[in-house]
Formats: sequence, structure tokens, C-alpha cells
Amino acid sequence: MQTVEIYDTTLRDGSQAEDISFSVDDKLRITEKLDELGIHYIEGGWPGSNPKDAEYFKKVKKLSLKNARVVAFGSTHRPKIKVENDTNVKSLIASEARILTIFGKTWDFHVTEALKINLEENLELIFNTISYLKRYAEKVFFDAEHFFDGYKDNPEYAIKCLKTAQEAQADCIILCDTNGGTLPSDLEKIVKEVKRSIDTPIGIHAHNDSDCAVANSIIAVLNGATQVQGTINGFGERCGNANLCSVIPNLQLKLGYRCLDEDRLKKLTEISRFVYEIANLIPFKRQPFVGESAFAHKGGVHVSAVRKRPETYEHIRPELVGNRQRILVSDLAGKSNILKKAEEFGIALNPDSPEVQAIVDAVKTLENAGFQFEGAEASLELLFRKTLGLKRKFFDLIGFRVIDEKRKGDEPTLSEATIMVKVGKSIEHTAATGNGPVNALDNALRKALERFYPELKKVKLKDYKVRVVNSGRGTASKVRVLVESGDEETVWSTVGVSENIIEASWQAIVDSIEYKLCREKIKKGEI
Amino acid sequence: MQTVEIYDTTLRDGSQAEDISFSVDDKLRITEKLDELGIHYIEGGWPGSNPKDAEYFKKVKKLSLKNARVVAFGSTHRPKIKVENDTNVKSLIASEARILTIFGKTWDFHVTEALKINLEENLELIFNTISYLKRYAEKVFFDAEHFFDGYKDNPEYAIKCLKTAQEAQADCIILCDTNGGTLPSDLEKIVKEVKRSIDTPIGIHAHNDSDCAVANSIIAVLNGATQVQGTINGFGERCGNANLCSVIPNLQLKLGYRCLDEDRLKKLTEISRFVYEIANLIPFKRQPFVGESAFAHKGGVHVSAVRKRPETYEHIRPELVGNRQRILVSDLAGKSNILKKAEEFGIALNPDSPEVQAIVDAVKTLENAGFQFEGAEASLELLFRKTLGLKRKFFDLIGFRVIDEKRKGDEPTLSEATIMVKVGKSIEHTAATGNGPVNALDNALRKALERFYPELKKVKLKDYKVRVVNSGRGTASKVRVLVESGDEETVWSTVGVSENIIEASWQAIVDSIEYKLCREKIKKGEI
Repeated sequence: MQTVEIYDTTLRDGSQAEDISFSVDDKLRITEKLDELGIHYIEGGWPGSNPKDAEYFKKVKKLSLKNARVVAFGSTHRPKIKVENDTNVKSLIASEARILTIFGKTWDFHVTEALKINLEENLELIFNTISYLKRYAEKVFFDAEHFFDGYKDNPEYAIKCLKTAQEAQADCIILCDTNGGTLPSDLEKIVKEVKRSIDTPIGIHAHNDSDCAVANSIIAVLNGATQVQGTINGFGERCGNANLCSVIPNLQLKLGYRCLDEDRLKKLTEISRFVYEIANLIPFKRQPFVGESAFAHKGGVHVSAVRKRPETYEHIRPELVGNRQRILVSDLAGKSNILKKAEEFGIALNPDSPEVQAIVDAVKTLENAGFQFEGAEASLELLFRKTLGLKRKFFDLIGFRVIDEKRKGDEPTLSEATIMVKVGKSIEHTAATGNGPVNALDNALRKALERFYPELKKVKLKDYKVRVVNSGRGTASKVRVLVESGDEETVWSTVGVSENIIEASWQAIVDSIEYKLCREKIKKGEI
Repeated sequence: MQTVEIYDTTLRDGSQAEDISFSVDDKLRITEKLDELGIHYIEGGWPGSNPKDAEYFKKVKKLSLKNARVVAFGSTHRPKIKVENDTNVKSLIASEARILTIFGKTWDFHVTEALKINLEENLELIFNTISYLKRYAEKVFFDAEHFFDGYKDNPEYAIKCLKTAQEAQADCIILCDTNGGTLPSDLEKIVKEVKRSIDTPIGIHAHNDSDCAVANSIIAVLNGATQVQGTINGFGERCGNANLCSVIPNLQLKLGYRCLDEDRLKKLTEISRFVYEIANLIPFKRQPFVGESAFAHKGGVHVSAVRKRPETYEHIRPELVGNRQRILVSDLAGKSNILKKAEEFGIALNPDSPEVQAIVDAVKTLENAGFQFEGAEASLELLFRKTLGLKRKFFDLIGFRVIDEKRKGDEPTLSEATIMVKVGKSIEHTAATGNGPVNALDNALRKALERFYPELKKVKLKDYKVRVVNSGRGTASKVRVLVESGDEETVWSTVGVSENIIEASWQAIVDSIEYKLCREKIKKGEI
């Protein structure tokens, strides 16, 4: 089986997308995930272009990656400057990345118009930069920027640039369709021509402006490219880069190339959603392979067929990429789904009991009000227990008050919460401050309850998310709050919805605490 | 110039998408728009499958369409029934559509598994249905369902089905990649084979499950297909259909086929957004050709080049499809972005002045802190003015206090804000309630300032969004608030960032108000 190297540039080219701005921490978290997936190369950033990327390279060295090599990206050195004096080149060396990717011009028009030098001088830039960096790095890749447009304009010169990179000992020469305008028919011809002209391994870097980035990447591989550059979810400038979530399964499941270990391919959907989450973007439902709708069936004809024989309407088995088949007729609301969930939660339910319908109705009502339980299974389990009369009350709220105060325009806003709760016959009245009103309330509630339930000390809030549900009503919009909590053993998620963010957060935090206390009771056999 | 017929199935296959449900009126409005665009065929629905579609065909006759022909869709008649007695076939005739499309099986596995008849009987269904309907309709097209999968399984039988349709005088035979699993390399081979086997014009109907629907459509055309079926925005079941918003400009602008009148191509972006609007979906920003980000430039290097010569980073001129170039400011921003923005804001800036660098630095610092100005141009303009000493102060905050109170667990949380501001020498001290703490504060601030600035009465908050910036720190996470405001003339967006949601919202609301007041001063020539 032939291997195709996967080169991920989500952190560099991907972050050029509108609305995407990764912090250094975000980048490190994504790096770890990409490593888990088994990506070969992770382009971490352009250390010469901004301090954030330079910081990334400092910190990424401390991660212990198992599969991936981290790559630093930069350009050929500037004209009229010696390569060793170029700040950009220096920062590449300073990054201490063992793999470097250099981009250079191969379109004559760009050389004379953008760089304002002659064609011969550009060849020197390419040669000098690559051969100089080869002394410092294990591998140097050459990104032939605008290669396809350049080839269409001046094929001899474009090829000459590649030959120069080859002479300078580049380890891979990547043909870039920087503007994304090349169609598969042209691309195939040009890749074939390149393969006839150079011996260095070639790669493909496609953009999606013509909606053909994935097809172009595949066609390049079929014609001899051994490296594919792209991004998770196709993030990237303008219309994005080739989507690795589509390229990888196409190559591996359909064409028999080896990109990732087979069991790792199953992580693809999880990775896709993780990267959306970190980018704080709503996942694109119709995204091939990993999208929520990718294996969702609506039409009645399809549904009965696909249930019997999935291959009738599914091009691959969704489990292969970690996705799942969904029947949309009545998603969560159907009785069979509720029964399946109850089983998961370890709750005994008689299929014919009226309680099943009661749960279906409760879920429907809350979903209409803006709740979503797919990311908040702990709240769903509590809803089941409540509807079935299986939920215990652990405390009564007598009242809380959250005060945010700002004195003078340039001082920060301070938050303080007071709370009074009743547990059994005892009343606890306490107060706490916080980074914001929700944090203050969260702190005060824990403080009040920990006296009675010391096990809550182990619970940490791991994540807090806010989404506006019905946009368009200004600051009176309804918000949905998702809270992820965890202790030493497990992680659980809860949800709250209200026009008041304090109220929505309160619901999610209370669910989180009640879920924990409920689990303890179940463990002890008290429920 | 060779013509390619465009066959739109947004109203039929497109409406199979998750989250899409068109009313009859929606369908009629889209029909008119598609007609304006100059689409050749509009598949309006499947009259035999539901009453809504039957009603559509009744009403669509009353529209006076100029370019498009409306098509009714249905299946081959059911086995063991005479074609003239099949209710499905009858409803096709009853629709009075002059063009009919019939889908039929061409994959042997589907014939025996789904229809449960033998292969010969299926050929009869195809022959009888087409030849019968030819008596009633002007044209009958044959959609060869699952053709590519069928061909891979049993090429002889798949071709035999097409030959049967040809004998029955089908006017066009459309090769359908119903499961969307076919890759361009296979597709090309199979289309070539079909062209060698039949003389009837062929069409292509591709789905996007492999992320190759657009490429597949183009490759089919290059190999002799003269009809392309697809949908606006690629709507459709699972991952959707071939996106006509990409197929059309690729064929017309890049390959020289004629699909639409040239001046109509300029309506493409408008149509795309119109259909999103009717479908009640948020447009996909990264969508090729027509997306909001399709010609948006972020990186500093790109921006200076693209301003001088758009072809350096744009594969086509955006105006050709009715889209536009946008320059985004971001942490990747160079001086050239800042200068272009200043020009847009009407602020005179000397490119060599130290002020330009001061703005670049200010933007970078704030972006590192979690700000994002791409969706908040009004805050950016205020930042420019502040850095240049052009910003006036309209009020001083002496202090505010926001109180959220909940009494007993089942009562809602109530929010109240008090505020004290100073305008000139006057002090205003007031209070307001709200749906939540931010709404209460917003109401109180407006109430306090309207006495001094009655023009604020016209300002409405149109949208309010919250994003967690650095997820993973629980309720202490930093949030970014985006506020969209508008008056009778225009709409503007502002941003705020803090760990405290009240503080972040305060920043965005203050910017919104100051922007409005600043614009009034500029209008009166006072700034």
C-alpha cells in the first residue's frame, strides 16, 4: 500500500480564514489532537510574521508528540539581502523546528510585479534559501506558490523554479494552487508535466475557490503526488484549503492509499468537531464524511431502504470515520430513541408505559424552548429521572443575589454573589466574588454546599459555553449555556436556557451539581 | 460556444436537506428568481409524493416565466401495474408540466433488493413509463439512479438500462451519482464508456458525499454531458447536490461553455443569498464564488498585492458573479490593511507617519487579548480615531451596579441596573430593569443618555452575540460580545472582551453609542 503524507496547515493557512483567530493555547491543543490522529506534518505557523507564532514554537517543544512532526513556515529571503541576514530566515532557525517549509514565487508575473526583481534573481532566492536552511533543518519543503497560474503563463520559467528547488536539495516540492482557480482537467495535465520534469517527490496544496480542492488533491495523488497539504474542515483564506476530512477518507477508503492508521481514521469526526469548537464556529452540517447531516436520511423511501441495507444510500459506513447514521423522521423525539437512551443511562423503562410518552413530550417541549441535549447528556438523564420521579432533591434555594459594580469608566467591573440555601434543616448563607457574575454565583453555590457534600470539592468546571439561540432580539435574546464538569473519574455536560444569562447559567450549574450528587447516591445504592 | 443546459433541483432534491422545508409560496418565489437568472429547467417537485408539490404545479402555471421550463419529477411505474393505472404516473400527467423527469433503477442490486423484481422486468418499467409519457409531454428526461454504482457492479446491465431509455425516446439520459461516492477518476472513465454506447444526449446529477460533486459535474461536461443537474448553494440530502453556484461560473468563465446570459451571471450572488434567506439558513461564508469570504483578504502580504493587481490573489473578478472584494483587518494585518481601512473610514492618514504603526500595534494588542474586528468595524473605526486623537468623549461613567436576584428555586431571576453618568456638568442617576443583566444595563444607559442625546432614541440593538474566547477555564473563561446596532440609515457592529460578561457587553454597548454620536458630529462637520 502506497503511503501519502498528510501535511496539516490548519494552524497557519487555516487561521487565515475570516472569523478564525487561534490563541497560542488553542494551537497547542489542536497540535495534540492532530498528533493523536496521526497526521504526519503539522505546520504550526510563520514565526517570522508575528509574535504569537514565535511563542507557539517555544511552547510546542514541551509537548511530547507521538506521530507528528511540527513544521515552521516562511518565505524565501528578501531580495538585496544576504540569506543569513534575513530576519524571516533567522526566525525560522530560531523556531528550532526540524522541518521547514519555504514558499517562493514561480509565476513570472509575481516575480516582476510583487517582488520587483528579475526572473534570474528569484531563482537565486529559491536556491539560496533552501540550501542555506538545509544546513539547519532535517528536511526543507518548497511550496511553489501560484505554481499552476505560473505554469499557464510561462511553463518554462515555472518548471525552472522547481528545478532550482530540486538542485538546492528540497525534500519535497509542493505545487500550490494559491488562488484556487485551477480546474481538475488543467491540474492533471500540469502535474503530469511536472512529474516528467523533476525527480524530487511532489506534493499538492489546493485552495477551494473553484470548489474543486478535494478533487484536485486526489487527482494530483493519482498522478504521483506523495504529500497532500490541507486543513481540518477546509478552513483557510477566502474559500478555504483542501479539506483533509474529505481528502483522507477518499484516499484511504476508496483508493487504497495509506494516510493514517486505520483505527485512527475513526477519530476524524471527533477531530473535525473539536477544531470547530476551538475555532468557535458552528460545524457545517452538510460537510462530507464528518458533518452531522452526512449520513442523515429524511425521505421515507430512503429510510426504509437504508435501514435494511445501508449501502443503498451510503457511500461508506459512517463508523469508519467516527460518524453515525441518523434517521430524521423524529430524531430524539421517537419512543425508540428514548428507550435506547434509558438503557444507556441504566434506567429501567417499560416500552408500553405512559412514562415513555411523558419523556418524549418533556424533551419536545424543552427542545422547542431552545434546549439541546445532544451536548448535554447529564441534563437529559436528570430530565428522565425527574419525569420518572427518580430524582432526589439535594438542596433548596432560598435566594441568591449577584451584584456587578463598576466605579468610573476605566475601572474593571467587580462581581459578587450572595446565596442562601437550605439542606435538610440547616441553612447556609454565604457570599463569594468572581471574574464575572456567573463565576461569582458558581463560587458562592459551591461554597454553600461543600459543607454538606464534601464530594463536590472534587468537581471542577472544565468548560463553559454560551450561544445565542434566537439572534436578532439584541440584549434580550435567549441564550443557551453549556457547562462541562468533571471529577477524577468522568466528565459530564449540562445545559440551561433563558433570556437571562444568569438564569441559564444557574440551571446548567445546578444540573451539574445534582448530577454528581445523584451519581454518588447510585454508587452507594441509595437510589 | 457550446451550450450546457442547467437543470435546477433546489425545489425537489434540495428540499430533502436537513433543516430545509419550503412552503408552496417559498417554492414559487424561488421559481421566479431562478427564471430571472436564466436557468433552463426548474424541477418543481414530485407531484405524486405529496399534496404540497401537487399544489405547486397548479400555482406555478400562473407565473409568467420568461426563460425557464418547469419540470415535474416522478418514478418509473410500479411493478405489476399497467403504466396508465399507476397513480404516480397519473399525477405527473395531472401536473400539466410539459417536461417530465422519470427516475429508474440501473443498479442490479437495487432492482432485486429494493424493487424485488427481475432485471428484465425493470427494463420494461423504464421502457413503458418513458414511451407512455412521451405522448403527453414535450420532453421526457430519464434519471438513471445509482448509475455509477450500478456500472461498477454490473456494467452491461447498467448500460442496457440506458439503451432501453434511448429506445423509448428519452430526450436526455442523466447519469446520477445518487450516493455521491464516485471519485472523478472513475467518473471520467464511466462517462466516456457511456458516450461510446448511446447517442441520446447525456446529463450529470452528482451528490457531494465525496466532496467532489462540482468537479464530477465539470468532468462529465468535458466528456460530453450537455445537461448539469444541481441545486443553488448545493442544498440537498446528506452532503447535498452539485452546487450550481460553483458549476455555472466554472463552466462559463473558465471553460467557455454557455450556461446563462453573461449579464445574468452577475445575479448569482444575489440568488444564492436569496435562497439562503428563504430557506432560513445562515449563508456559508466560505462558499466558492458567492460566499461573503470568497474574495476576502486577510494576510498583509496578500493585501498589498491584491490592491495593486487583483489577479494576484483572485481567480476571477468578483463582480462577474455579483460578489465583491473585502479587506479584513486581523492580527495578520500589515500597514497596507490599516491604510485601506482608514480610506474606507474617510480618515486621512499619511502612509509614512508613526501613527500608522501606532494603529497596527493597538490592533495587534487588542487581538491578542481576544478582540476580533472583522465583525466589528465600528469599534475599529473608534480605535483609529482614539489612536489619532480624533475621538471625543460624550459622557463619563461615574458608576453602575447590576443586581440579579432570585428568590426560591422556581422563581425567575430578576435583573435591575442602576447607573450614574456625567455629561458636561450635568449628572444623571437612573435605573432600569431588563430580561437579563446586560439588557438591564443597556436600558439604564440609554435612559440616562437620551436626555442629552435624543438622537439615541432612533438606535436599536439588532443583534447580540456571545462567544467564549479561551474555552476550558469554566465560568472564568473570557468572553467576546458582538453587538449589532442600527438606525434608520445604517447598521454598525461593535465588540467587547472580558472575563466578565457584563464588562464585555458594556464595552460593546458604549462603542455602539459613541459610534452613533460620533457619526452625527461628522455629519454636522463638528469633527
